[in-house]
Amino acid sequence: MVWVHYKMAVLYANARGALVMKSQRMSRIFEALDSFEIELPSWGFADTGTRFGKFFQEASASTTEEKFHDAGLVHQLTGACPTVAVHVRWDFKTGQHPREVVRLAEKYGVGIGSINPNLFQDQCYKLGSFCSPDAAARRAAMTHTLDCVEIGRLVKSKYLTFWLGDGTNYPGQDNIVRRKRDLQRAFRRVAETMPSRMTMLIEYKPFEPAFYHTDIADWGMAYVFCKYASSGMRGRRVKVLVDTGHHYQSVNIEHIVAFLLDEGMIGGFHFNDRKYADDDLTLGSIDPYATFRIFNQIVQHAFDTGKDPKLAYMIDQSHNLKPKIEAMVQSVDLAQRLFVKAHLVDRKALARAQQKGDVVAAERLLQDAYETDVRHVVRDWRASRKLPLDPLGELRSSGVINHLGRQRSAARKARGEVQVASYA
Amino acid sequence: MVWVHYKMAVLYANARGALVMKSQRMSRIFEALDSFEIELPSWGFADTGTRFGKFFQEASASTTEEKFHDAGLVHQLTGACPTVAVHVRWDFKTGQHPREVVRLAEKYGVGIGSINPNLFQDQCYKLGSFCSPDAAARRAAMTHTLDCVEIGRLVKSKYLTFWLGDGTNYPGQDNIVRRKRDLQRAFRRVAETMPSRMTMLIEYKPFEPAFYHTDIADWGMAYVFCKYASSGMRGRRVKVLVDTGHHYQSVNIEHIVAFLLDEGMIGGFHFNDRKYADDDLTLGSIDPYATFRIFNQIVQHAFDTGKDPKLAYMIDQSHNLKPKIEAMVQSVDLAQRLFVKAHLVDRKALARAQQKGDVVAAERLLQDAYETDVRHVVRDWRASRKLPLDPLGELRSSGVINHLGRQRSAARKARGEVQVASYA
Amino acid sequence: MVWVHYKMAVLYANARGALVMKSQRMSRIFEALDSFEIELPSWGFADTGTRFGKFFQEASASTTEEKFHDAGLVHQLTGACPTVAVHVRWDFKTGQHPREVVRLAEKYGVGIGSINPNLFQDQCYKLGSFCSPDAAARRAAMTHTLDCVEIGRLVKSKYLTFWLGDGTNYPGQDNIVRRKRDLQRAFRRVAETMPSRMTMLIEYKPFEPAFYHTDIADWGMAYVFCKYASSGMRGRRVKVLVDTGHHYQSVNIEHIVAFLLDEGMIGGFHFNDRKYADDDLTLGSIDPYATFRIFNQIVQHAFDTGKDPKLAYMIDQSHNLKPKIEAMVQSVDLAQRLFVKAHLVDRKALARAQQKGDVVAAERLLQDAYETDVRHVVRDWRASRKLPLDPLGELRSSGVINHLGRQRSAARKARGEVQVASYA
Amino acid sequence: MVWVHYKMAVLYANARGALVMKSQRMSRIFEALDSFEIELPSWGFADTGTRFGKFFQEASASTTEEKFHDAGLVHQLTGACPTVAVHVRWDFKTGQHPREVVRLAEKYGVGIGSINPNLFQDQCYKLGSFCSPDAAARRAAMTHTLDCVEIGRLVKSKYLTFWLGDGTNYPGQDNIVRRKRDLQRAFRRVAETMPSRMTMLIEYKPFEPAFYHTDIADWGMAYVFCKYASSGMRGRRVKVLVDTGHHYQSVNIEHIVAFLLDEGMIGGFHFNDRKYADDDLTLGSIDPYATFRIFNQIVQHAFDTGKDPKLAYMIDQSHNLKPKIEAMVQSVDLAQRLFVKAHLVDRKALARAQQKGDVVAAERLLQDAYETDVRHVVRDWRASRKLPLDPLGELRSSGVINHLGRQRSAARKARGEVQVASYA
Repeated sequence: MVWVHYKMAVLYANARGALVMKSQRMSRIFEALDSFEIELPSWGFADTGTRFGKFFQEASASTTEEKFHDAGLVHQLTGACPTVAVHVRWDFKTGQHPREVVRLAEKYGVGIGSINPNLFQDQCYKLGSFCSPDAAARRAAMTHTLDCVEIGRLVKSKYLTFWLGDGTNYPGQDNIVRRKRDLQRAFRRVAETMPSRMTMLIEYKPFEPAFYHTDIADWGMAYVFCKYASSGMRGRRVKVLVDTGHHYQSVNIEHIVAFLLDEGMIGGFHFNDRKYADDDLTLGSIDPYATFRIFNQIVQHAFDTGKDPKLAYMIDQSHNLKPKIEAMVQSVDLAQRLFVKAHLVDRKALARAQQKGDVVAAERLLQDAYETDVRHVVRDWRASRKLPLDPLGELRSSGVINHLGRQRSAARKARGEVQVASYA
Repeated sequence: MVWVHYKMAVLYANARGALVMKSQRMSRIFEALDSFEIELPSWGFADTGTRFGKFFQEASASTTEEKFHDAGLVHQLTGACPTVAVHVRWDFKTGQHPREVVRLAEKYGVGIGSINPNLFQDQCYKLGSFCSPDAAARRAAMTHTLDCVEIGRLVKSKYLTFWLGDGTNYPGQDNIVRRKRDLQRAFRRVAETMPSRMTMLIEYKPFEPAFYHTDIADWGMAYVFCKYASSGMRGRRVKVLVDTGHHYQSVNIEHIVAFLLDEGMIGGFHFNDRKYADDDLTLGSIDPYATFRIFNQIVQHAFDTGKDPKLAYMIDQSHNLKPKIEAMVQSVDLAQRLFVKAHLVDRKALARAQQKGDVVAAERLLQDAYETDVRHVVRDWRASRKLPLDPLGELRSSGVINHLGRQRSAARKARGEVQVASYA
Repeated sequence: MVWVHYKMAVLYANARGALVMKSQRMSRIFEALDSFEIELPSWGFADTGTRFGKFFQEASASTTEEKFHDAGLVHQLTGACPTVAVHVRWDFKTGQHPREVVRLAEKYGVGIGSINPNLFQDQCYKLGSFCSPDAAARRAAMTHTLDCVEIGRLVKSKYLTFWLGDGTNYPGQDNIVRRKRDLQRAFRRVAETMPSRMTMLIEYKPFEPAFYHTDIADWGMAYVFCKYASSGMRGRRVKVLVDTGHHYQSVNIEHIVAFLLDEGMIGGFHFNDRKYADDDLTLGSIDPYATFRIFNQIVQHAFDTGKDPKLAYMIDQSHNLKPKIEAMVQSVDLAQRLFVKAHLVDRKALARAQQKGDVVAAERLLQDAYETDVRHVVRDWRASRKLPLDPLGELRSSGVINHLGRQRSAARKARGEVQVASYA
Repeated sequence: MVWVHYKMAVLYANARGALVMKSQRMSRIFEALDSFEIELPSWGFADTGTRFGKFFQEASASTTEEKFHDAGLVHQLTGACPTVAVHVRWDFKTGQHPREVVRLAEKYGVGIGSINPNLFQDQCYKLGSFCSPDAAARRAAMTHTLDCVEIGRLVKSKYLTFWLGDGTNYPGQDNIVRRKRDLQRAFRRVAETMPSRMTMLIEYKPFEPAFYHTDIADWGMAYVFCKYASSGMRGRRVKVLVDTGHHYQSVNIEHIVAFLLDEGMIGGFHFNDRKYADDDLTLGSIDPYATFRIFNQIVQHAFDTGKDPKLAYMIDQSHNLKPKIEAMVQSVDLAQRLFVKAHLVDRKALARAQQKGDVVAAERLLQDAYETDVRHVVRDWRASRKLPLDPLGELRSSGVINHLGRQRSAARKARGEVQVASYA
């Protein structure tokens, strides 16, 4: 124990050589890690791909039970993922009582997290869901969504999360304002129907699968839709969901986060990383400093206001090559480290440097925190919480993925499933 | 006259060969051109450049009087530019009564348009104006702005236009939320001070001259600042100004325009074009179809609501190579053509195609209007309004630019001015 | 006939009012249209989609014969599409003699165009084809490609076209230089095997389906691979293929085209349009002026050198919403118009304005050509060639798409095909 | 000493808890740091700004002597900056023997590094330098460049570095191919004139100050110009210079670096960072992982080939807010850390993981190296080389910047200099 403290002290030695890491600070960081929960997407354990095809993995999950199994495994390894986001179309079967799905999740040690309607896959959504020029499509979208609200009520979910594929592909294809108004009305109606414990999250995305315009293209539009949906009723909660991959190149995401935090209008995150478009790579894999700066704004907000913004952290990644469970563990692991680093910023010194306009000193305080190697801090927290010290290493050495691969291949074969996906 | 109508008929023959241009339609287009006014920026006649230096033009305007002269010339040639946007710092001298500036403009047949405070050039604004961590800088910004309001009141200007250079260059440099709050308060105070006839326009821009974050980075932030500034007071008008060059790559600007029109929150435009960043090239020079689509949304809004959104169209271009007056005439000329094309869209047929989800037919209606050659329509309108038929040709053949070049070179020499600008 | 010429004269009246369109000029334009051929992709008639799913069309082609039927129809309507690009994996069946495919194409009045190996769909290409770290995958790629060369020889194809999906998704995933070297060797070996009448075309693309790096990311890399593959052997032809959608935002594509033309290193185009990433929308639908500027550089090259660069024009679009055949006709139709406009530029006047540094006059010559409405020119050319005057209108009024829809739905049903595509 | 080794061991403990840092490895890292030299730009100590103006700093250097003083100070503090890049127009006076400039540099402990012609500032370069349509401008450019070669010969410089502002602002403005050919000829002529010890470096940049096309827009064009300039003469060295800020959004720069290394065609770097365009922020300030990945490719190249690519590392940053000397020290300091991290990658394990297609393991090896806190390694190296342990802290606590500010303000006042820069 003495050794651990000594090691910490050395590790956190700042650039000037002083030993600044106090055990007091360590306990604050441990508390932060205790509070850090990040939801896993059930669809993140299934095979996904690009429009050019999918590369299938033997161990990928096909059934809802397999998805819960995998999520449970990630939670066991990391201690940070108690809930699973579910996709109503894929995870709830007709005729099945939603509570059965809850029990299935519980069997694997996880709970049901956010409820995600699917408003993009059915052929009827070709021209949009709530925004379609076809009233039948709009009605189908509403019916499905109200079913989702009901499922959410039954499974006691706290979040109803909307990502729409709505948009148009060609100039002139549709009347943008007619679409906007139909969408406003739809969100408002859903919000009125939600149980009071539920928060609606509205996601934005500039393009894909629509390529000329997307009906909720940016945070500003999401914000306006949220305001309409929640106006006039006290306590109705409708907030913006930030997916880190859903931005134009070079957008300053942490600025948007800080702005929305101050407005009280951000509800949570879909984390992933990207280099080009919405690449859905694993969290922090391309630009970890950018993810750190997002966490930094959140910690700064708590520091400045004394309030916890109660954000829903969720992973939404959809890579093609990494083994699914490994990729999840890797993302959670890195998220924890970047979250810890955001807690190392000396905020009082930062405020002083900012006030003086000392650009170099202020920046350096962020850089100092970011450059600090916190792998051992997270490790020590894991030791204290009886978690595997190296969850990814543990997973890889366990052989579980190979085991699952064999088992699931056999199961698919037994079910007569063929895995095909082609471009044209 | 018969010949003109025949020519028009031929010109507007649609793709199927039918003659669709009715004289009724022509008179609507002439009315539209009569109503189309686009403000010129006084600074658009002066030498500007890039950070690597300026290339000086002999005929560039140096004094406010020269700027009004040039704007007056553009108005004479095009009939579409009755007002000039003024930059308080550059166009109003201490000790001079603002009405003298009005009289100077009137001498050249133009009026004073929007009032533009300058909150980026003084050394005190190094870390920002209303957002600076330095209270003295914030006060200087407020003093200057209130002076601008007073000038605007005296010269009866309808618009107070804000473009701020505020932002930071490095992560951590300043507290983004503290800056946001100071800016909210400042805009609100200015709005409270404005005379009732005045509209405040708030411009957004993602970067430059700030390179890490800009305090009003996108339309969503501008929208929120407008809402705060106008909240709680009936009839206080604060609206978003869209500069077409102030967007991330691939942003769908006409979508933002349509969205803001529906919100009643767009006040006007700064027109220019760009290929990369905020290149400030002449209107429509890079992607004319995109400018057409903006006008298309405005005409669509009027068609759908029966209301005129009363937008302030302004040119804000800052190119380095084209002769300044020529470039202005060229922009106005092209703007008129693209505006006319937007009026050629058959909106009833478009609504039908959109409702049916007939993507190809709907798009084709836009393309048909855009591909129609309207040079003769604008020419005929000019003939009917006793304007030069080809304003740019008229300007070029008149020799006036050479004449101004000699005159102004001599004047600069007489004043002992040296034109220097260097990178480092 | 007199009337037609009069109409043309009026249509081509330039901005100064003079009548400049001479019948001499018309015959040059008709010759240009006669020479303009644009290849259709067989896969462009099949259902495609995004990673979020496909929207199925009843009339989409499922079989190679159906694809040839549709291509033949487009050629009948436009007179500009005598060949069809084939995808070896999708259009040639094992055990079938390639000449049977030729005969099938001939049945519908089209010939076999470029041969396209498929090196991205098989599961073995998960980590790449020629660049895979797995030697077995590299061998599979070579075997398939040599089969393609043999097929190309048998069907007398002039082009072997490579688009690779090769790349990596994460930093560190593979050794970039090892991949480069394996690819160099592979291209060289294929080039050595090609019959002398065949030209190899190498396409570049910055991302998708790989999201960290693509092995042929830009034209510079394609150029270097072409140089290696053709070095040391006279007359071996390996050239760059430019897909207009495969560029970073804001890249000046016509500059690359002009540069490659001067290097003698461009072989052809895949045309489509995009607003964001590789959206594969129909040609000219987003930025028609940009497509015009590409044609302008090609015509300029011919004017400056007196040589025909013999480029392979091909359409490669993959939209989700427009009826497939309509979309092809629409693209060909617009391509013809933009191609004609490029021939209207007064190149002698342009050279004079450029030499004098008269930026405005030079730009205006391009704009004048672009703004000229050439729909009637193309129409008159069609009349003179006994083609439908309005191919898209003809197609739409014929009812053929509905007919095909019923027929093909029934055929799919008879074959027991189910159309499914899902995200996860 | 024992303590230091122990500390190192702890610091380098890898994620699995093993102590892997061997003293052998430490000595290799110390050697790497010994070999790491990064050139400072003389213009980086002067006031620069944006097109909207400059914010002046009291301590900024105005004279060449002041620039050398400041560079000398940075070298004293970091031990890594023995040479200074000079700008011929700004640093060499007419009538002054170039060796006087050498002596001036030596007075401050630095030598003359690369020679930089200025081909963008004179009014004659309005339409370009080597690419101008005006033969007189092209001749002026050649005369100035040959003067630079002569200066380079006299001061024994190893590098002649070209960054051109050449390009056009509007479609049609000039003949792109004529410009290309004139530029090819010019580079070739200069290359023939260079002394054999000199390497020509050609920089590329997609836009700014030209906004429609830049004559050397990307690495591919620079590569082709290099090949022409060096063709036919053994040992003539003309190579590409990579400025990290001169790329389109989302370009994979390390891929280009790896590709050029394998081609033997990269000569060096201009380091800086950016979020949007060519923002010229300090190195690694926005995306430090990206800079690490560039160094990683260089170390990988050395590992794979056993050869040192002998690259010229240079800083070229031009920020507006940070004190100039501080910013330089900060950049060098961070460059050293990122360079060290690139040496920590376990390349044998990496090769194994890559060969197996183990994406997660391969990526993790890069991440492990990057996440390692190396501040103490660099510190220990400094201690062993008798350098200040914390160069930035030393600089800031020394008060030298305040001192210089007072001194230089007084000197400017004595010289009667006024600092002005305005937008319009």
